[in-house]
Formats: sequence, C-alpha cells, structure tokens
Amino acid sequence: MGEKRENTFVLAPDSFKESMTAKEVCVAMENGLRKIYPTARYIHVPMADGGEGTVQSLVDASGGAIHYQEVRGPLGQNVMAQYGILGDGTTAAIEMASASGIHLVTSETRDPLRTTSYGTGELIRKCLDQGIRKVIIGIGGSATNDGGTGMAEALGAKFLDVQGNSLERGGGSLNRLAHIDVSGLDPRLQEVEFIVACDVTNPLCGEHGASRVFGPQKGATPEMVQLLDANLSHYADVVKQQLQKDIRDVPGAGAAGGLGAGLLIFTQATLRKGIEIVIEYTGLREKLVHADIVFTGEGGIDFQTKFGKTPYGVAQAAKESGKPVIAVAGYVGEGIETLYTEGIDAVFGIVPGAADLDKLLEEGSANVERTMENIARVLKLGLLPS
Amino acid sequence: MGEKRENTFVLAPDSFKESMTAKEVCVAMENGLRKIYPTARYIHVPMADGGEGTVQSLVDASGGAIHYQEVRGPLGQNVMAQYGILGDGTTAAIEMASASGIHLVTSETRDPLRTTSYGTGELIRKCLDQGIRKVIIGIGGSATNDGGTGMAEALGAKFLDVQGNSLERGGGSLNRLAHIDVSGLDPRLQEVEFIVACDVTNPLCGEHGASRVFGPQKGATPEMVQLLDANLSHYADVVKQQLQKDIRDVPGAGAAGGLGAGLLIFTQATLRKGIEIVIEYTGLREKLVHADIVFTGEGGIDFQTKFGKTPYGVAQAAKESGKPVIAVAGYVGEGIETLYTEGIDAVFGIVPGAADLDKLLEEGSANVERTMENIARVLKLGLLPS
Repeated sequence: MGEKRENTFVLAPDSFKESMTAKEVCVAMENGLRKIYPTARYIHVPMADGGEGTVQSLVDASGGAIHYQEVRGPLGQNVMAQYGILGDGTTAAIEMASASGIHLVTSETRDPLRTTSYGTGELIRKCLDQGIRKVIIGIGGSATNDGGTGMAEALGAKFLDVQGNSLERGGGSLNRLAHIDVSGLDPRLQEVEFIVACDVTNPLCGEHGASRVFGPQKGATPEMVQLLDANLSHYADVVKQQLQKDIRDVPGAGAAGGLGAGLLIFTQATLRKGIEIVIEYTGLREKLVHADIVFTGEGGIDFQTKFGKTPYGVAQAAKESGKPVIAVAGYVGEGIETLYTEGIDAVFGIVPGAADLDKLLEEGSANVERTMENIARVLKLGLLPS
Repeated sequence: MGEKRENTFVLAPDSFKESMTAKEVCVAMENGLRKIYPTARYIHVPMADGGEGTVQSLVDASGGAIHYQEVRGPLGQNVMAQYGILGDGTTAAIEMASASGIHLVTSETRDPLRTTSYGTGELIRKCLDQGIRKVIIGIGGSATNDGGTGMAEALGAKFLDVQGNSLERGGGSLNRLAHIDVSGLDPRLQEVEFIVACDVTNPLCGEHGASRVFGPQKGATPEMVQLLDANLSHYADVVKQQLQKDIRDVPGAGAAGGLGAGLLIFTQATLRKGIEIVIEYTGLREKLVHADIVFTGEGGIDFQTKFGKTPYGVAQAAKESGKPVIAVAGYVGEGIETLYTEGIDAVFGIVPGAADLDKLLEEGSANVERTMENIARVLKLGLLPS
C-alpha cells in the first residue's frame, strides 16, 4: 500500500503519414519519455481515424496480422490488396482504398463511369472464407462511383438490364439497371456484422450526393457528374422497389461513391465515425483509466483536427476520465487554439529547424523522440517528480 | 503574509538572428506565457553573448539609447556606425563590427593588408567626448588584421617608419614600423575602463595567432598570412621595447585581427567572456533571484551553445540559484543532450512544420509565442497550478 506507484503513460498517436506508422510513433514516444522516466509504464495504443492506416492500427493494437489478397482494382487490373485479422481471430479490418482506391488509377486513367468497387467485394469474400464474424471497413479514398454495385457483384449479386444481361461494371451503366438479382448473394453476409467507418453524412444523390460532391475529384466532368448522379438516383429507385430498402437519404449513403449505400443494402451494416470505431476496437477507454498523461499526435494538427481526427478523438475520450493530453505533430497549423478547450492541453511541433519535407519525413522518429524527451523534462519539473 | 504569491518568469533570450531582437523575443515569450499565466510577473532581460546584438541588449536591458556616428569603415569609406549609452549614462557599449566589420567589405574588396580598425577608434573617441567612464566593447566579426593600430591612431597615437613618416593604415605596412608615438594619445583613455568582450584565447602571433587562424576568413592568401603574422610579431617587438608592454602571448591578444592586443596596449582594458559581461551589466543574477522559471533561447541551439553562447550562460547563472531553465530555438541541432547537465532543463524548437528559412524568419514572433504558450500549458499541469 505504501509503495511508490509508477507513472503510467498512454501513447495513442495516429501515424505520421509518409513518415511513421502509428506503432512506430508509439516506439519513438516511449524512447523519448523513457530517458526521463525509465521505470514508468508505457501503454501503446497505435491509433487511426478510419482513414489510411486504420487496418494497421487495429492489427497493431490487437496483436493481429496483415494478410494480402490479389483482387481486381478499380479498372479491373490486378491489385495486391491487404486486409487485417484482429487479435480475436474473428474480426477483419479492410480499407476499401486498398482494393479500389483513387491511388490505384493515374490522372490519365481516371474514369468514374467505369471504376468499380468489385475488388472490395473480393476482399470481403476472402474474409468470409476465413470464418470472420465481423468486418470493420474504412471507405475513404475511393476511386469509384458505382453505388457499391461492384462490391455486391463480387459477393454474388447480379445487376441486369431489361434483357437480363449483366451490366458492365461502373456507375456509368446504372441507367440501364432493370433488375437486381440477389438470389446468388453470399448467404454468409446475413451472419456477419459490418461496421463501416464513415465520417461524411452525404446522401446517395442530389446536391450533396456522392457524384456531385466527390465525383469531380475522381475525374468526373460536369456532364459525367450529371449522368452519375441520375444513375445513382435510378439505382436507389430500383433498390427501393425490388429490395424494399430506402437508402437514398441515409446519411453516409453517398460516401465512397455510394459504397456506403451498397453496404447498407447488401450487408448488415452500421455506419459509425472512424475514430469512434478505432477507440472501441483498440480498447483505448479501458487503457486510459491507468494513465497519468495521455500522449497523442499526427503528421499534421490544425483546425481540421476537431473534425474527427485521431488527436481530437483521443482527447475527447481522455476528457471523459479527466486525463491530461499532450500532442505532437510534424506540422502545427492554424487554429490549434480551438483544440485547447476540447481536451488537448498542449501541442508541440517536432521539427528542429528550416528543412524540406523529405528530410523531415525521414527523421520523424528522432524528432518525435527528442520532443517527447523535452516534454518529459518539463513535466519532471513539477507534475511528475518521480 | 498569507497572500498568494504570483509566479515570476525571467525572460532572458538572445536575439534570433535575422528574425527578432532579444527584446522582441522577450515580448513574444511573454505574450505566449501570459495566455496561461495572465497575472504573473514578467522580467525581461534581453541578452547577448558579446557578439552581434550586444549593444542592443545592454541598451534594452538598462533603459539606455542607441546613437549613431559616421566613421571611416575598414577600407576608409564612410560608414554609419552605432554605439549605445547605457541607462546609467556613463557606460558606453560598442561593437567593433559596427565600424570595422567584415560585413562592410565585399568578397571583391576584402584586403586584410589594408583594412583598418580606425573607425572603431573614432567610435571610442565619440564616447570619450560624451564623458563616458566605462566602455564595453565587443570585438567579434572584424574585417581587420592591423593589431588595433588604426583604432589607436584615431585616438592620437602615431605609427611611424624610420623616416618619421606615418605608415599607411592596415596590417600590411607594419613591417616598416620603427616608432610608436603616444604623446598625442587621448589622455582621457587613462581615466576610462575598457571591458572587452572576447571569447577567444588566441595569442597575437604564431600558429594560433590572429593572422593564421582568422586571416583566411578575411581574405588573406597564404602569402598574406605569412606577411601579416610577421608584421604583428614585429609590432609586438616594437611595443615591448618602446612601450614596455608584453602583450604577444596574452590570451585574446589575437582576437579581432589583434584589436585585442591594441586595446590592451593603448587603453585600460580587461578581456572577459562576452556572456559574463552581459550577465553582469544586465543584472541578470539579481533578477534571477525572483524567478520561478527562467526562459532563454537563441536562433540556434546545438553542441556549440556550451562554448559561451547566451542560453548556456543564462543556464549557468540560473543553476547558481537553483532555478529551472527552459530554452526555445529556431533551430535545434546536434548535441543538445550535452546541455541538460549544464542547467538547461529542456529545449523546444519553435518551427511549426516544413518551411524555408525566409518564411520562418518572418514568422519568428508567432512561433515563439505559440511554443511558449504550450510550454506554459504543460507547466500548468503541475509545477505552477495557479
């Protein structure tokens, strides 16, 4: 009872994009802090916010593994995509971008009339084959605008024209959709829970819909946007009529070119904020209970951080249990003062001086480590005299 | 007695070269801290280390004023030089570089055979004219290699050849020095104390002498170095013989092309480390007594900092009274870990992200302010809970 309690630090950063995975950031953080608090407890919780790095984070935090699977890319080409099996062995994690992402098409080959989410469906099928009971799927960074029809087709659905012929893949042909045949849909989809990481609330069609808002960044001309939007609207009509599901105006249906809608139609899906999913599946809240201080961070922290980025989510969770939060970032931008009232007590840049980005990306670990050591030095002056 | 004592912060940074004067750094530091500690006491002690910015620092710290005087530059051209009169009204501060600095010659016009410290002597004379009793003189950054003969000439000494003709100015003619006539030397020099800020220990001549060590950076070719070194050696002989002063091997005699020697010969001079002079004349030690925390900083902090730079000097002084020191810098370089045992408790870079130097120099104040606020936020977590 009279024994000295060791300090406990919870390290819950996002990745520093193009520089370090979240797990590597945790290691650098600990290396810095450990110089000042050599006997403290360090709890690593590599984080993500539902975007790039989410699979890695969930795998790292749960002690799972990354797997690879060749699938069809957004233009039908072969793509080596990845998915994760979490430490429990029954939960999979997928990023749709790994199979169907915008980074898989060049600016010359971008064609949102033709790009398909088929590969994402193949990844899902692979997970089902492995006996998975739950799929966490991040849907950011898509190249597609097909309403998730490609994904559904890979899982056994058929999208037919009036003659009963299968439509070509891609959102450009959905104006000819006459019948959706779900008789061949993989029956295991009924047994599996889908948790969709989705931070946008766009409906499937219309002014705020998938095509108008996200189409242009996928290469859609104004004419294409109009066609794609009309096609998704027709698709929603057919779905409502034949499958008795009205997903047109569900917030998030328009995410990832309508993959949000596709998941709602063809799987047992719940849409949730990415950071909340990661907080839950990393067990962050339970780990926070032991913390004296929580450290977070991300490649960049600015006014956008409070729109659901990792440092904000970590801070909100920490606030619930009254824990102080200190953040580090490679880039400290405008508006960080708005974070001080949201549970982030302090933010430090890690950059040591004038330097170009390439050099800084290379030296990320050393810079995190040095900054953390110096934060620890200030803490040691008072709060944690160890 | 029962009243709450306000926190006291001593702000003792150097200038951030090309970005902010030390005084401006103090203001930015206070602006950042004040957001968290609005009722604290802030004691500004703008610092310098005897190099560039020393006059400004001493003037700012003492409530003195900067004055301007046209003098002859290192090549005889007109130069508007500055000097300071400290708040006591009887102490002057001079930087020799202001009158005779390397920045006043171009790479094309560099000629250490001809450059003269005459303008520095003119500045000194101007100070004498104003009834000054003490001159603090920083001698870094010189363009000269004349043993301080130019300076002495401006104050009434004559350097003559065997025919009794005055030598041309510059170290290149000292081989013909036959006689030094000090009969016309300003008699007020006997009454005035010179405190020379000098961080080097080079003797006047020889392997570690002024010409060999510092000549090349002033444009001396190997042949010039040999000539200049022989000339200064001859000069030392003449001085010893005629003025009964043996300054040849006095540590620091070789500083500023031998201006160190010249001041020892022709004035009542004491050579001291720059930072120690500034600490004394800013009253830093007395002000430190009240501090809860001392903040310092400089444009760059690295392994060289402990060779007499401001953050090191401030830390050493703070250590004497057991005060914690936190430093900020625009550039945090290699070897800062060697400072942790020297009284600097923590070092933070102020740079917010990848950026080129010009932009960072412009945004210095904002970056100091943001960094200081965040340090205060960490302090507030524990040490200074007010």
